[in-house]
Amino acid sequence: MELLEKKIVEDGYVVDNDILKVDNFLNHQLDINFLNELGKEFKEIFKDKKIDKILTIEASGIAIACVAAQYFNVPVVFAKKVESKNLDNDVYESEVYSFTKGKSYKIKVSKRYIKSEENILVLDDFLANGRAALGLKDIIEQADANLVGVGIVIEKGFQEGGEILRGMGINLESLAIIESMEEGRVKFREKGRTKNV
Amino acid sequence: MELLEKKIVEDGYVVDNDILKVDNFLNHQLDINFLNELGKEFKEIFKDKKIDKILTIEASGIAIACVAAQYFNVPVVFAKKVESKNLDNDVYESEVYSFTKGKSYKIKVSKRYIKSEENILVLDDFLANGRAALGLKDIIEQADANLVGVGIVIEKGFQEGGEILRGMGINLESLAIIESMEEGRVKFREKGRTKNV
Repeated sequence: MELLEKKIVEDGYVVDNDILKVDNFLNHQLDINFLNELGKEFKEIFKDKKIDKILTIEASGIAIACVAAQYFNVPVVFAKKVESKNLDNDVYESEVYSFTKGKSYKIKVSKRYIKSEENILVLDDFLANGRAALGLKDIIEQADANLVGVGIVIEKGFQEGGEILRGMGINLESLAIIESMEEGRVKFREKGRTKNV
Repeated sequence: MELLEKKIVEDGYVVDNDILKVDNFLNHQLDINFLNELGKEFKEIFKDKKIDKILTIEASGIAIACVAAQYFNVPVVFAKKVESKNLDNDVYESEVYSFTKGKSYKIKVSKRYIKSEENILVLDDFLANGRAALGLKDIIEQADANLVGVGIVIEKGFQEGGEILRGMGINLESLAIIESMEEGRVKFREKGRTKNV
């Protein structure tokens, strides 16, 4: 998505060669007008699919999921990462390894909010190693629901998540795929030149 | 707000006498059409104020903040609760005591995203003891910005947050104020009958 690549180049910056900071529009400060453009694009990409619900994961996935949901006219459910007194005990649960934090954490979704045979679109801001997306897929399968696709704002193409998910036959659509980040420069994967898996 | 009180009565339920669960529309599953109604109401309430930015706190505040921001046409910033490798070191920080969890946690906002003299509206889904709102107020003051008001979806009127914030002269507007929850029944504070502080 041209508009997103432009925004990343103009507003994003690279730290330590592998951390792309886009926290001025995507995951700390949120540019709601821009998120609306991304939401419309997700709707365009998945327009032929029947989607009953959007599933994401706290915290930074919530913003894009909520804004995009307006174009799909469906509710959002977000998986919770932390223990919460206020969360139902009756939950689907999966374990996710975080490479950033170097440890695993549990994600939970109340059984009330993913039902058997519902068609679920997963949306998230970033895809790196893909473990969060796999955790959400696991929860969808436990619920006997259908994973229609995974929509990602920024995929780090040099990490394994994209390859793993596409290799499993998941309909993964990333609005921008970063091929490399070197010396503070971001290189995007060219359209139609995605790796074969 | 009549529509919200109706929704709470119809869709919410009380657990252990003091936990109101509204996780089917507000803080786990998100009813985006309904959040839009709440967003419009916040805009109506604060329509005469100059607002440059909406500040909230992860995770469940993000949804209402993002949807409401569309009516204010301003960006959202959400305070982060957890240590994150990806967060700027140059942050405003405040400590918040959580009565639910029985411990304190830190909230952080990058100094890039709250600027001196900006007019900030704080939005959140719940107000109970008010500690999160006070933490956000602290951060706004550190940044030398202006706290224009605090908008809350559901205030627990039987906990002290509302009294503390109003007692400090903060322009606190809650769309629904719950006076009591007993035997599974929710009683709302009547309009125009807010406690004097």
